[in-house]
Order: sequence, then C-alpha cells, then structure tokens
Amino acid sequence: MKRALPATPERRPAFDPSSAIPVTETRFARLELPPGGFRLEKGGVLPRVDVAYETAGTLSPERDNVVLVCHALTGDAHVCGRRRWESAASGWWSDMVKPGGGIDLDRYFVVCANVLGGCMGTTGPSSVDPGTGEPWGSRFPEITVADIVDVQFLLMRQLGFGHVHAVVGGSFGGMQALCFAVRHPGFADKVAVIASGPSLTSQALAFDVVGRNAIEQDPDFRGGDYYGGPRPAGGLAIARELAHITYLSGEMMKKKFGRRRRDAPQAGGPIFEVESYLRHQGAKFIGRFDANSYLRICGAMDDFDLEKQAGGSLAAAFAPVKARALVVALEGDWLFLPRQSEALAGGLLAAGKDVSAFRLDAPSGHDSFLIHTGELSSVLAAFLLREPSRPTAAIDPDLVRDYEALERMLPQRARTVLDVACGDGTLLDFVARRRPELDGTGIDLSVPRAVRTLRGGHNVMLADADAGLSAVPDDAFDCAILSESLQVMRRPDRVLEELLRVAPVAIVSFPNFGMWKIPAALLFGGRMPVTKRLPYRWYDTPNIHLCTVKDFLDLCRDRGIVVEETLHLSTLALSKILNRLGAKNLGSSRVIVKIRRGASGANPRQP
Amino acid sequence: MKRALPATPERRPAFDPSSAIPVTETRFARLELPPGGFRLEKGGVLPRVDVAYETAGTLSPERDNVVLVCHALTGDAHVCGRRRWESAASGWWSDMVKPGGGIDLDRYFVVCANVLGGCMGTTGPSSVDPGTGEPWGSRFPEITVADIVDVQFLLMRQLGFGHVHAVVGGSFGGMQALCFAVRHPGFADKVAVIASGPSLTSQALAFDVVGRNAIEQDPDFRGGDYYGGPRPAGGLAIARELAHITYLSGEMMKKKFGRRRRDAPQAGGPIFEVESYLRHQGAKFIGRFDANSYLRICGAMDDFDLEKQAGGSLAAAFAPVKARALVVALEGDWLFLPRQSEALAGGLLAAGKDVSAFRLDAPSGHDSFLIHTGELSSVLAAFLLREPSRPTAAIDPDLVRDYEALERMLPQRARTVLDVACGDGTLLDFVARRRPELDGTGIDLSVPRAVRTLRGGHNVMLADADAGLSAVPDDAFDCAILSESLQVMRRPDRVLEELLRVAPVAIVSFPNFGMWKIPAALLFGGRMPVTKRLPYRWYDTPNIHLCTVKDFLDLCRDRGIVVEETLHLSTLALSKILNRLGAKNLGSSRVIVKIRRGASGANPRQP
Repeated sequence: MKRALPATPERRPAFDPSSAIPVTETRFARLELPPGGFRLEKGGVLPRVDVAYETAGTLSPERDNVVLVCHALTGDAHVCGRRRWESAASGWWSDMVKPGGGIDLDRYFVVCANVLGGCMGTTGPSSVDPGTGEPWGSRFPEITVADIVDVQFLLMRQLGFGHVHAVVGGSFGGMQALCFAVRHPGFADKVAVIASGPSLTSQALAFDVVGRNAIEQDPDFRGGDYYGGPRPAGGLAIARELAHITYLSGEMMKKKFGRRRRDAPQAGGPIFEVESYLRHQGAKFIGRFDANSYLRICGAMDDFDLEKQAGGSLAAAFAPVKARALVVALEGDWLFLPRQSEALAGGLLAAGKDVSAFRLDAPSGHDSFLIHTGELSSVLAAFLLREPSRPTAAIDPDLVRDYEALERMLPQRARTVLDVACGDGTLLDFVARRRPELDGTGIDLSVPRAVRTLRGGHNVMLADADAGLSAVPDDAFDCAILSESLQVMRRPDRVLEELLRVAPVAIVSFPNFGMWKIPAALLFGGRMPVTKRLPYRWYDTPNIHLCTVKDFLDLCRDRGIVVEETLHLSTLALSKILNRLGAKNLGSSRVIVKIRRGASGANPRQP
Repeated sequence: MKRALPATPERRPAFDPSSAIPVTETRFARLELPPGGFRLEKGGVLPRVDVAYETAGTLSPERDNVVLVCHALTGDAHVCGRRRWESAASGWWSDMVKPGGGIDLDRYFVVCANVLGGCMGTTGPSSVDPGTGEPWGSRFPEITVADIVDVQFLLMRQLGFGHVHAVVGGSFGGMQALCFAVRHPGFADKVAVIASGPSLTSQALAFDVVGRNAIEQDPDFRGGDYYGGPRPAGGLAIARELAHITYLSGEMMKKKFGRRRRDAPQAGGPIFEVESYLRHQGAKFIGRFDANSYLRICGAMDDFDLEKQAGGSLAAAFAPVKARALVVALEGDWLFLPRQSEALAGGLLAAGKDVSAFRLDAPSGHDSFLIHTGELSSVLAAFLLREPSRPTAAIDPDLVRDYEALERMLPQRARTVLDVACGDGTLLDFVARRRPELDGTGIDLSVPRAVRTLRGGHNVMLADADAGLSAVPDDAFDCAILSESLQVMRRPDRVLEELLRVAPVAIVSFPNFGMWKIPAALLFGGRMPVTKRLPYRWYDTPNIHLCTVKDFLDLCRDRGIVVEETLHLSTLALSKILNRLGAKNLGSSRVIVKIRRGASGANPRQP
C-alpha cells in the first residue's frame, strides 16, 4: 500500500485531446495506523480507518505535479471523469478537472478522497465498528476538520505523496485546504480556497442548526441508532431541502423557477416548481446519504473556527503557512460571504504570506464553483502554473521612460511592492526583470487583467482601490505604487492615505492638469481639453479628479505627507523649454512624486 | 354593531403628553354576512365570520382621521398600547403607533384586526365550524389575500368607516394594503406598503415550502385534524426557526450571536447561542400559534401574485388604484427585496399614479420595520400628513432668479414634473406656488431631504439618479428638471438620456467651466479653480464632470438632442460685459438649457 498507484495515461483521439473524458474508479486504502488506532482531536479513537479515493491524470516522473482536491460537505472521491460504463463525465467537478481545464489533467495528477465520517467508502458512522461488529451509529465519535485533513494527509503519505504541488478545495473543501496549509505547512506549495471562510457565519450556522434539529427530532432517528430499522428520511430530507436553498442565489432561483406553478398539481403534492425541485432534492439525498454522516460532518464544519483556534487572530492562525495562497470569493454567494474570503486574504497578508485574492461574479450563488467554472477555471489555471508566463513584446517607449524613472525611485531595501491599478502587470513584469528580489503584488478591478498579472508569477488582488484597500493590513508592503491612476479615483486624497497606510513609502504618477495646453484649450477653444494623456470627452472620462502639480503638493502639505522627490516629465518642445525656464507647473505633461509618511511616523489618517 | 365604537381619548399627564402609553383592548365583531355566508375567492364558504380588532387614538368629529393597520404573517390585532394591567407597551408596533409616533395617535384613529384564518380571535381553522360543532381543522377552506382584505373591509364598513385616511401595512400586511388599493379603490386616500412586494420571491417561497413540509410530515399533524390530540409542535417549531432566520439579516445575526457558544451546554442541548435563540423562538411560537392557521395564511401569502392576476403587468394591476401610494423598501431585507418595492413603485408610476418610494437603511433585515422605526417613522409621518408643510423662509435671491427662469421654461401644457436631485424640494415648492396645477415629484438620495420634500406635499423617490432612473417608466412625466447637478453625475450623458426617456422635455442648468475665471485661475494660479459656484477642492469635489456651454451643446448635437432654448446667467460685471459682447462661453457663470428629444421622436437610446 506504500507505493502510489501508477497513473494510467488515457488514450485520447488525436483530433481533440481536450475532449477526452478520463475513466476513473474508486480505490480503497486501509490506513497504516499506530498501535491504539487513530486518535481524534476531541478525544475519540478509531481502531480502523478505510479511505475511498480516486486519481486522474498522469504523474510526472519527478512526482511534482500532484494536486489534492478536497470535496465539499456531501461530496465524494469521484471528482472527475466517467466510469467505464458511462459515456459522459459524472465526477462532481468534471468541468474543472479535465484535460485543458482549470485543473488541467494534461499537466497535473489529481487525487481526491472521501472524507472521514462520510458514507461513500471512507470510515463513518455507518461503517462497522470492529469492536462490536455492528455499525457505529450513535457511538461514532465526534470529528473535526483537523481529523478529516489528517486522514487525507496519512493517505497521501501512504501513496507516496509526502509533498504535493497544490491543495484545492471549495466550500467545506476550502476549510480543509486552509487546515492543510496551517497544520501541514510543508505539504503543499500552493493552496487554493474557493467560496469558503475561516468559519461558518452566524446565519450559516443557523441553517445547520435547523437542519440538525429536523433530523434529531425525526421519530425514526432514535438517537442515531436506526440501522436495521427505518431511516430518519423525513428529517434528513428537510435538512437537505433547506441546505439547497442556501446553495443557490435568490437571482438564480428566480431564473430557474420564478413563481411558476406545476401544470397539474396532485392533491397534497407540490404546487410550485420550486417546491417540486426541493422535494426532489430531498428525496434524492435520502437515497444516497446517511443521516449520522450528515450530522457528524456538519458538526465538524460548524465547529471549525480558525480565528478562535488562534486566540481570535487570523494572522496568528496563518503564521505557520508556507504555501502561496489563492482565495476566491463568489459575489452572489450568501452562504460563504465575500467578506469572509476578504478576511482570509487579510489574515494571510498580515502574517506576511504570498496571497492572491479574487472576487468573481457568480450570479448563481454558492453552487457556482461547481457549475459555472469559466472565470474560475482561468484563475485556477493561472495560479497553478509552475512557471511565470510573461509577455516579451516591447513596451511603448514613452512608458518605458516612465517605468525606468519609477523603478529608480523604489527604495533600495524594499522587498515587497504593491502596484495599485496594476493593469496587466506590465509594470510589475518590468520591475521583476530589473529587481528579481522584489516580491510584487498587483491590485486591479478587471478579472482578465488580474489573471494576466497572476500568470506573470505575481500575487494579485482583484479589488477596487477606490473603495479602500480594506483587505490590506497596515504596513503589509515596503512600497506602494499608483501609476497614472490618481485622477480616476473618486477620492484621490483617501487613496493616497491608504497607500501610506499599507506601505511607508509610495510613488505616484499622474497627468498635470496645469500644463499650458489645458487652460489654453479652455480659454481659446471654449471646450474641455482632449489630449494624448487625457483622451476622453468630458462626460465619459474616467479622469474625474484632475489636478495640477501645485494642487498635489498642496494636498501633501495639508495632510502632513512628506514629498521626497518630484520628477517632471514632458515631451513637447515648448514644454521642455518651459520646464527648463522653471515654469514646471506649465511645462510638464506628467509628474512622478515619491512620498512618505510625515515625520511623526504616524498613520496620516490620525495626524 | 353597525355603529363605530366611540374612541376613548386617553388621559395623559400634562408634562409630556407623548410619553403616555394608551390602554387598548381586543373587541370582537361578528360580520353581518349575506344569506349563504362569506364566499371565498377559491370557492369555499364560511357560514360565520368573527373578527378580533383593536382601536387606539381619537376619532375626529369628521371621522376623517382613520388609519387601518394590517398585521404581518403571525401578528394580531394588538398593534399598540398596553393592557390595563401592564405598565409597558405590548403591541407589536408600539414604537410606530403612539402619540407623536410615525402613526401619530395624537392625530389619527387607528384600527387593526386579526386576519381571517388566524388563531388570535378571528375565524380560522381552530374555530368551531357551526355546521358540525367541531373545530374546522383540515376542512377549513383555502383562503386568499383578497378574502383577508374583504373581511377587514366588511368590518370597517360595519364600524362605520366606509372611507379611511390611510391603510398601512408591512411585510404580509403590505400585501394586504396593496390588495386594498386595487380591490377597494375608493376606500383609502393613502396606502403605505412597507418591506413588501407584489408576490413572494422564488426564494421566499422555497423557505415557506420547507416550513410547510416540516409541519405536514410531523406524525402528529394527522392531515390537519389534530385538535384534541397532541399538536404537530416539532414541525411547527422547525417552520418557525427557519422563518426567524429569514427575518434577520446576516449582519444582525452576526452582531446578535456571532459564533458564540453557550457557557455550559447540556448533552443534546444547544451548543451555539444562535441555536439556543432559534429553539427558544420555535418553542415560544408553538405555545401561541396554531399549525393549521400557519399553513392557511402562508398558503394565501404564497399564492398572492398581483402581476400574474393582471396578466403579467403590474401597471395593469394598479390601473384601478386611486390612493396616493408610499412604497418603502428596507436595504438589508432579503425576504422582501428592495427590487420588489422598486417594481411596485414602477408599476404604480406606469399606471400614472401618485407614488413616493423610499429605500431605507435597515441593517437588521426584514424585522427592521418592527424594531428600528426611527427613519421609517419620519417617512410615514410625512406621508400621512393631511396638509403640506412648506417652509416660507426667503430663498437666496440668486436662486430665485434661476428658479424664475427655469419655471418660465416649463411647457405650458405640462401637468407632471420630475425634479431630479430635488434636494429639500425648494424648487418644487417654488413651482407649486406659481403653477398649482402641476403635480411635482422629486428624486433625491438623501433621506432627510426626501422627507422634507414629502412633507411639502410632493411625491418623492429616494434614488441615486446616477444609477439610472430604472424605477421610472418611459414617459412617466411631462417634463424633467436637473438643476445644478449635471456635473456631479458619474455619467452625465446617460443621465441626460434618462431625463429624455422619462419625459419628452427636460430643463438642465449647470455651471459653465469655460467661464473666463477658470482657465485664468489655472494659467496664472497654477491650481484647480475654487469659485462660489464651484467651492470644492480638486480631490473631494462632487463636481466630477465639468463642462463648458460649448461642450454641452456639442453633446446634444452628437446625441440628436434638440436644444430649444439656452439662457446664460452671470453676476460679475466683467462677465456681463463679455456676455453682451457675444463671448457668452467666457462670460456666463451658469447656463439653463431646455432640451427635447430629436425630431424622430424616438427614445434617444435607440436613434
């Protein structure tokens, strides 16, 4: 059992390799346990642990392309592919884990195991207790996410994978991925956490409570010892119907069912389509899932609380982490909230870790990570890349001049740099070539641009800098850059303060509205000026807060911001002459200013 | 029974009349029904209908100050005040309905009745069926919101109130208020609908479905004929626990319970505080409510669908409405969504009705209308006012000159006018004095300003004009005004298009950025100009899209907008001279332009 099973490369037709669906099957491993059995976090002991798992893809000769996928609450080991007798993919994440997919089976060797406490082949309450020869039932001990993770860790070691490229999980799987990063820091190079959080919210907990109450008060539940008799199907169905409401957004429910009524409702039967759907989900679930497993795994999820575990601080919880982390929030998810993912990213940053964070549109809600994998695939694929992919095309020479000037202003001792409104990451690429020791993080609000930055090997956070860098803790970076974006901010003064909150030094470049061409255009043309650097019309311009060099320097003075260096750039001949004559406010078309916090060293927000 | 009961004015101590809590008691009326009994919308018949109701406040001699309050799903007639033996108010809306409250008992005479199908004194499934002498149980017929409303209507007539000043309802009570407006158009002068909608959303329906399933599959339910035996307490508790989750926002749950655990949880007992809270709510409810009543009233609510009833059009549904309407959405409400209130307001506007619409912050969620009544009180009080309250203080003479010019530009035949970014309603007040035949509606994004506009007797909609006037149907008004606010819009071009979508003619006034002082300040001062009309600094100015007169006229030309009249205003002597010399672009500090849709008459969005 110690050796990994050799991965069988799939034969695929030559015309379209990515359309091939790999054939997968469930295997079973009995864990090699120390004498006395597997000790659980809450004190229980399991004398025997069997684990059901599946693999897909091809293991590299160096065994360095393994990705462990952790499944969600009621999932199983069948993450991708089809059975031999099936013609279509039946794995629960087949859209993501496939040749050419977000987790690309042409690149990675994927492993997925059913969790401890489950009822899909891994030891759980419906398994036979070797001590009695009867199903565990009510005597199955309480389990935690740490136990669930440790069982997978033991399995992986037994299969010969003491180290993997990445651990990926969504929802409850994301909690497992987080727990892996904290409990087994050397295990994975990368950890991706999707639609998850450091714990359940109060509201999510409340839904679990009602589901659990419904099961426990079902007369057939009999305290959990129902094996051999009727099962608590009614209660389990209610719990599942309820859970299914939380997996979809209200918008998706509206789209899918609206208020449509069934054509010919039977007496006592469902009237509305949504009613029929929920009843169907409930009925399907009681056929495949065990009520005790549901209670035990929900119990582990309800109990999971990274923050509490580390004395109330996520940064402390993340201190041991070594992996590069990706945190993905889904916008329409109301079970695991975007603010929870933001808290994860903030905690990782505060602990000084490499973090990328995305917030993707997901109108369907929580389930989107399973069913709408388009954008998520491109994010995951970029994150999992083992080598950065940086475009080598030449940059606009005008830009190169700006970038060179900007790069020269970077403090010599800086090790981390944040580029706000980073675009495609061109500036970070430029800096990385000249200063490879610098660890770059970009912020942008466009998903494709952020994905390109991520592919360049940088960390990236999808965020609107204008809404504040709330996810970024104080002093998280050595230097912050805001290049040619000051004027698009709704509150440029607050953005400046934010820059100098997250880093002691900032470099800001912006177009100079005082340049002679602009008042001249107003005075003699009678219209708002349109220039190369300000090419928009008055009504659709993103440049809503233009200023002159003097305006900017005034603001710095008023806010106690120290100006370390001011560089005037200009291209027009007349401007150059004006610059040389000392009329820099009239001459320069753009300006780069290096600023730092005032002498008091205090945060500029608290003068 | 035909005569109304004389309202007993409460004795209040002289020092603080509004602190007195009125004493209220439940009265009972047996409805005078036609022979054959009360015919229900779905075909059933009730031979006898008793109604429990309460009254509070003093009836005016003219009997013109009656406000009917409709209660929510599991409410009752005890809307306000205290019982003789109580020292504190115990009514479910005591914070709102009290002397000096949003529904001011010093001004209005309030009536509230328990709904048909209920279990708080009005005929319902637990009442005795006179035909058998046994409780109705499963034989109690299906009821609808129309039946519930008709019973209240009959009660009011019987009490001598064939016409009332207003009907007010929140949540399910809001559905009743809407139904009153549509079914009995002459009944009320005003109708206020709070945190409600034209129907339940798919998601809200789904929650009801799960609750109903839990009751119906409780073994003690026995098809509804459980009277005399054990009650289906388990199922009813689950339904209530679930409903309680939907009444609170996630934020409020977080604040109230977070993930706190109970100090000494008992085996099998609740572990988390939220768990204990929900169990308590469930247990409390089964003591006071009947499962069959819950199913019947939920059934009426699930079935209610104003849109469907009128062939899919809310505008058609609202055609009969005569009352002035107020629609209030709560921002944190996820059971009845703000977009549903917006749909109500849009439907009423499309039907040509007088509508005011608010969207109030309510971080607690749906229950906010019951517990956080501050802002809601001020809105309701302003809406219920029987005479407009317009300030008579003198307006800035500068402003008077603008308003006069603007008023002269209003089309002679206009009957309705929309003032976008209306502020306190000063311009609408001004126009109302000179053109009393004009029906004014304001839009503003500040609640206090919108409330002042409402108190002035105008309709008002709380909305961000910049986000589009999506709630306003095409051609809802004869003329639209945008006074001194073009430059604060994020997309002024789109706002112009919106103005000419909701009205054929618009009048727009704005500061002229081409005025000589501005380029002069840039050129000679080197800083962004600060003037009387543009008093802000570059970084915090709301004026983010400034333009010159020429710029504005260019845009109109590009978009096929016809400019009917352009008026240049200036105050400075030099400007006046420049204006007279024809250099109006340099001379005028502000401009008023009257525009209308292009010759094609088409919506400018579809040229």
